[in-house]
Amino acid sequence: MEEKGGIRLNQKYFDRLLKELNRTDYDAVMVTPSNEFKFLVGHTPSLGARFEGLFILKDGRYFHICPLLSQEEMGEIFGAERVHAWSDGDGYLDTVAQCADRYGLRGKTVAVNQHTRAFHVLEIADAGIMDFASGKILMEEMRIIKDSEEMEYLRIASRYADEVFTELVDFIQPGMIEKDVKDKIRACFKAKGVTGDGMVAVGPNASMPHYNRSDRVIQEQDLVLLDFGCTYHGLYSDITRTVFVGNPTAEQIKVYEIVKRANEKAIQAIAVGVKASAIDQVARDIIAAEGYGDYFLSRLGHGIGYAGHEAPDIKGSNHRKLETGMAFSIEPGIYLPGNFGVRIEDIILMGPEGVEVLNQVTKEMIVIETKRN
Amino acid sequence: MEEKGGIRLNQKYFDRLLKELNRTDYDAVMVTPSNEFKFLVGHTPSLGARFEGLFILKDGRYFHICPLLSQEEMGEIFGAERVHAWSDGDGYLDTVAQCADRYGLRGKTVAVNQHTRAFHVLEIADAGIMDFASGKILMEEMRIIKDSEEMEYLRIASRYADEVFTELVDFIQPGMIEKDVKDKIRACFKAKGVTGDGMVAVGPNASMPHYNRSDRVIQEQDLVLLDFGCTYHGLYSDITRTVFVGNPTAEQIKVYEIVKRANEKAIQAIAVGVKASAIDQVARDIIAAEGYGDYFLSRLGHGIGYAGHEAPDIKGSNHRKLETGMAFSIEPGIYLPGNFGVRIEDIILMGPEGVEVLNQVTKEMIVIETKRN
Repeated sequence: MEEKGGIRLNQKYFDRLLKELNRTDYDAVMVTPSNEFKFLVGHTPSLGARFEGLFILKDGRYFHICPLLSQEEMGEIFGAERVHAWSDGDGYLDTVAQCADRYGLRGKTVAVNQHTRAFHVLEIADAGIMDFASGKILMEEMRIIKDSEEMEYLRIASRYADEVFTELVDFIQPGMIEKDVKDKIRACFKAKGVTGDGMVAVGPNASMPHYNRSDRVIQEQDLVLLDFGCTYHGLYSDITRTVFVGNPTAEQIKVYEIVKRANEKAIQAIAVGVKASAIDQVARDIIAAEGYGDYFLSRLGHGIGYAGHEAPDIKGSNHRKLETGMAFSIEPGIYLPGNFGVRIEDIILMGPEGVEVLNQVTKEMIVIETKRN
Repeated sequence: MEEKGGIRLNQKYFDRLLKELNRTDYDAVMVTPSNEFKFLVGHTPSLGARFEGLFILKDGRYFHICPLLSQEEMGEIFGAERVHAWSDGDGYLDTVAQCADRYGLRGKTVAVNQHTRAFHVLEIADAGIMDFASGKILMEEMRIIKDSEEMEYLRIASRYADEVFTELVDFIQPGMIEKDVKDKIRACFKAKGVTGDGMVAVGPNASMPHYNRSDRVIQEQDLVLLDFGCTYHGLYSDITRTVFVGNPTAEQIKVYEIVKRANEKAIQAIAVGVKASAIDQVARDIIAAEGYGDYFLSRLGHGIGYAGHEAPDIKGSNHRKLETGMAFSIEPGIYLPGNFGVRIEDIILMGPEGVEVLNQVTKEMIVIETKRN
């Protein structure tokens, strides 16, 4: 998976997907343009409204259906004989039907990846061509275990995130708006030659874990929740720290220390063979014992790799045992509606020598000094 | 739809969607996070792997299902009583089932928007809760006719695109790579206070209409296909021009003139009451008469508005008659595999006073002079 090395099928993952497919009852898997497509093929077309998908059969044959305008480009990747193009004038359903007949998929069940659009599978199924099923687990299993090269890229991506955090602590000042800090995150990563982005939530906005606007001004006595990351050779980093501008209140200090302890104790509990759900429980118990159980709104963590969120989820309903090669976040949070929120997130890699905490910047409470005073 | 005015339901479009829904056999429509969600609600959560959707019933009631971590934010928008949140520990299917029972949707058919993910609807349908159908036409009809404010935003967005084209003509020089020009497009729009992006394809890459890489060096005698646009208050622009670096070949001149004539004649044929397919045919006939029919790979155009691509498509299979308030591209192209491609694209608005060509920069052949010589 060398980004600069041009386009080629990622044979290792193709083989792994094929092996997983052959463990299921599905007849094929369809991968539509997405991060997952890029992962398998080394390049992905844009995900547009036009139907496009790579079909992989149990016997290892594969073919690609695409709009006429991608035919040449996709032919370069897959070989012209494997590419079946449809025109805007005719629509895609006839081509899908012809391929289903040609490859023995008429009336069969095809597993689809996460990014496949519902309206395409609904239209194909309504036309009586094929049936579909969620291929979520199939796609997840394909890449849940990282190899040594991927581990190294994850380490480097997290190191970049750590460096950006240090720059942000120097940068943030009262009077800035959330968007200024968001722009700074992008610029810091860009200066390192990588692409990164983040979420910045100030004061009461930090009580919304997936806050997605950016117009609040940072004021004295605000806390700032910073959640950001980048990709390095396709592998993601993801870090959250919550910092204070001006002195925190007694309640903020208390909540911060609980979240920090939940983060640290959960990380200490991580080991090969331990269930993901058990790690989630460690953090949940600590937060609940302090009376904040109702305000820990999310799973404890999510897997990370060629997507920002992939398997394994660290949550109560995931009893999968942890294995060497897995990578995931540990991100307990307490979110008090309309008041404030605190989250502390690190990426953990189940490395060959043991558990590695990829984020090394401090989790001690940081109070940013106002330079203008 | 004032972007700065905060978040509120867009009542006009909500009413229009409801009216369209009541013309169908579907029992409800589900809108998942997307440009379409933003259009209706004034703000959209990120589209993640977690299930989230706004359900609108035929009688005008609506409710929103979201992950627990979006509950507060979505409650601010819809009112807490309309928001039904699910936790990562429990998963989303139970909450969907409870809502289906509560709102009388158990076993009913729900139309979904373009961006809905297949694996969610497959999982909900497999659980026997609801069935789904493509709501593509429903969503398209909701916004196919632009009002006067939207028309004005479209005009302004296209004016920005025109200005950026003029800047690009001054900027492009041999030795640059495609990515340099792509970065310049983003920077030009950013300097105007808007967000824009584009595709840049040099030489033989221009024969791939949706070319999506960016590493080729611009050389003397190359042509450069520039396809870009921005948004202004949520409304899109989209322009393509093909320019020459060094003197074009006789074949390039010939192809350029054919594409230009196809663009101009198609635009002249546009009028209220004319079918979209008839406009497509005008351009197709011109290109076919010159022997390049097999190399005009795409529809003639696509609608534009709150998405870069929406209804009405200008293509052979769309017999919808053009109406005042519609906006769409006219973009004939000839794509010669491995050799070169030419496309000329303008946005057309069916304005209150008649047909408006929103892009006013020249379509005459431009040959960029090399400054370094």
